[in-house]
Amino acid sequence: MPIVAEVMSVAQVELMVKYVDVLQIGARNMQNFSLLRVIGETRVPILLKRGMAATIEELLMASEYILAGGNPRVMLCERGIRTFETATRNTTDINAIPVLKSLTHLPVILDPSHSTGLSEYVAAVAKAGVAAGADGLIIEVHNDPANALSDGRQSLTPEKFATLVKQVKMVAEAVERRLAPVIQ
Amino acid sequence: MPIVAEVMSVAQVELMVKYVDVLQIGARNMQNFSLLRVIGETRVPILLKRGMAATIEELLMASEYILAGGNPRVMLCERGIRTFETATRNTTDINAIPVLKSLTHLPVILDPSHSTGLSEYVAAVAKAGVAAGADGLIIEVHNDPANALSDGRQSLTPEKFATLVKQVKMVAEAVERRLAPVIQ
Amino acid sequence: MPIVAEVMSVAQVELMVKYVDVLQIGARNMQNFSLLRVIGETRVPILLKRGMAATIEELLMASEYILAGGNPRVMLCERGIRTFETATRNTTDINAIPVLKSLTHLPVILDPSHSTGLSEYVAAVAKAGVAAGADGLIIEVHNDPANALSDGRQSLTPEKFATLVKQVKMVAEAVERRLAPVIQ
Amino acid sequence: MPIVAEVMSVAQVELMVKYVDVLQIGARNMQNFSLLRVIGETRVPILLKRGMAATIEELLMASEYILAGGNPRVMLCERGIRTFETATRNTTDINAIPVLKSLTHLPVILDPSHSTGLSEYVAAVAKAGVAAGADGLIIEVHNDPANALSDGRQSLTPEKFATLVKQVKMVAEAVERRLAPVIQ
Repeated sequence: MPIVAEVMSVAQVELMVKYVDVLQIGARNMQNFSLLRVIGETRVPILLKRGMAATIEELLMASEYILAGGNPRVMLCERGIRTFETATRNTTDINAIPVLKSLTHLPVILDPSHSTGLSEYVAAVAKAGVAAGADGLIIEVHNDPANALSDGRQSLTPEKFATLVKQVKMVAEAVERRLAPVIQ
Repeated sequence: MPIVAEVMSVAQVELMVKYVDVLQIGARNMQNFSLLRVIGETRVPILLKRGMAATIEELLMASEYILAGGNPRVMLCERGIRTFETATRNTTDINAIPVLKSLTHLPVILDPSHSTGLSEYVAAVAKAGVAAGADGLIIEVHNDPANALSDGRQSLTPEKFATLVKQVKMVAEAVERRLAPVIQ
Repeated sequence: MPIVAEVMSVAQVELMVKYVDVLQIGARNMQNFSLLRVIGETRVPILLKRGMAATIEELLMASEYILAGGNPRVMLCERGIRTFETATRNTTDINAIPVLKSLTHLPVILDPSHSTGLSEYVAAVAKAGVAAGADGLIIEVHNDPANALSDGRQSLTPEKFATLVKQVKMVAEAVERRLAPVIQ
Repeated sequence: MPIVAEVMSVAQVELMVKYVDVLQIGARNMQNFSLLRVIGETRVPILLKRGMAATIEELLMASEYILAGGNPRVMLCERGIRTFETATRNTTDINAIPVLKSLTHLPVILDPSHSTGLSEYVAAVAKAGVAAGADGLIIEVHNDPANALSDGRQSLTPEKFATLVKQVKMVAEAVERRLAPVIQ
């Protein structure tokens, strides 16, 4: 299973690229241009998360900083934007998925855990993302969400995650996609 | 095929209920409480559209005005909210679908034509809505979108609509739902 | 003292114009175009409040419906917009005041009671509005805010209002404006 | 005249503190917690700018990272938030000024250049900020705005700035404040 880890400063990059399979740029660092430039010089796959007030255009421009450095392995991730709605932690901008798919060839990932912030809505929004054309999902899972140190409120138990994978597989097939085999 | 028409003032109600199958309350009238009270006294099915800056809670409170009058036939419709994102006309709040399904037994409808405003994204978001649990869709169709008097930019041709219906059927089945037979 | 009253439907207009000095169109009716057309045919002064998700451009377009009917006596009112910030009930768009002043000759009014929603911030924002160029203010006052039937949380006592008027007078003079004499 | 410079990464701090009078944390770094911790260990005055989608509460929490390190010299800066309104680059949250003044003893600064993005509205919003209780202003000035490398659209000429200072002085006195003497 691939190791994905969030990089938060330029100083961490050199060490992290030795051990991780994917470097994640968190929403708060989407416009940390010095960091984007440094990871653009690596060849490690990057998961670039949209800032919570970033437009789709700004997400694409941020990706250009990485691509311009010569690293073509960039995935774009919708993780919810900040709006007036308070029933969920963020508002999943599901429109962003077809918009991004029409504007770029980079893979588009959805993070329904952060974009809803509430575990009971993760499955519905995960399925929506796949139906809308997302190329991947990131889902928070925890053995004991109630006692998680962070993000417990949005984490699925392994059992619920296993059920969700089956449901996602069905939706993926309905839109003529397939789940990739898991790399153990 | 049922006739759905938008009612915009109290004065129109008496005449319209004689001829239409569904009265639509548009987003701008979601909090027109005098109108909500009057249609609550009828028994015609109501399609209540969320205001573009209305919270989910406010949508539910608006529905209570109709229900309190004795008319239980209310459908709730997500049609996009206003956010900072300008790539699409509105932002489809896909989270609203599972949130509403968890809070009420009223049917939940998605209007991807208004919630995206751009015909090229309607199909993706329509499928997302069904995958997220929506009970219905409203889709704008026009024989000649380029020359439509209004909303042409978001309207599908009949051919594209026919294709979309087939795709939606597949997604519906993937989430264990079915398309209702069309009433001619 | 002039009588200002909110009109909420076309049916009320005929009676109200006989008794009120100013007809107010509330934020929820800013795009009630049938109502705007009817009051455009009267000659009573109109206070047109910006919808809570309406752009400045949409506010101006709404005013055109009234002006087009031949009624030139329109005042535009900023009363706060809906954003992600929850510390106050709405976000006062203070930018809207100079923007409107540059785009139209209509008087521009600020309603700091609604745009903050909290009485303790009304004075600061009222003064800001005058400093930014507003031509008038609407302030909620109640003899006993804690027991008001509505909007108590944002209402000033008469004593606080009297203090505020003195402060506003000072700010108005600092920007070379004057308070109009009160019509008793 | 004091030197204010923006610090964008931890690596820059050690050198910058030798030469600048004030370290600015830009809106994009408001939640760069590793940077906040490092500057909390210095004793240089900090200008902490609100993120464009950050709540007032989050701004205060970010300031706590600096204060917790033992550096009490923190100024908070409102520089506009992102909303649906597009007539201006950002929306000046003028409410934030009295809200911050009521919640903290830290100085509160307004940046009307960024919060409007358009030089023609800077003066009105600067005066509004002072009337609302701001303890300071940051204003972009450029000898030749039309040819500025960045932010020319929101920059004042020295002549307009000199006029604005006189106007701000009048408003400050109207709210019983004074301009500090300029340090040359």
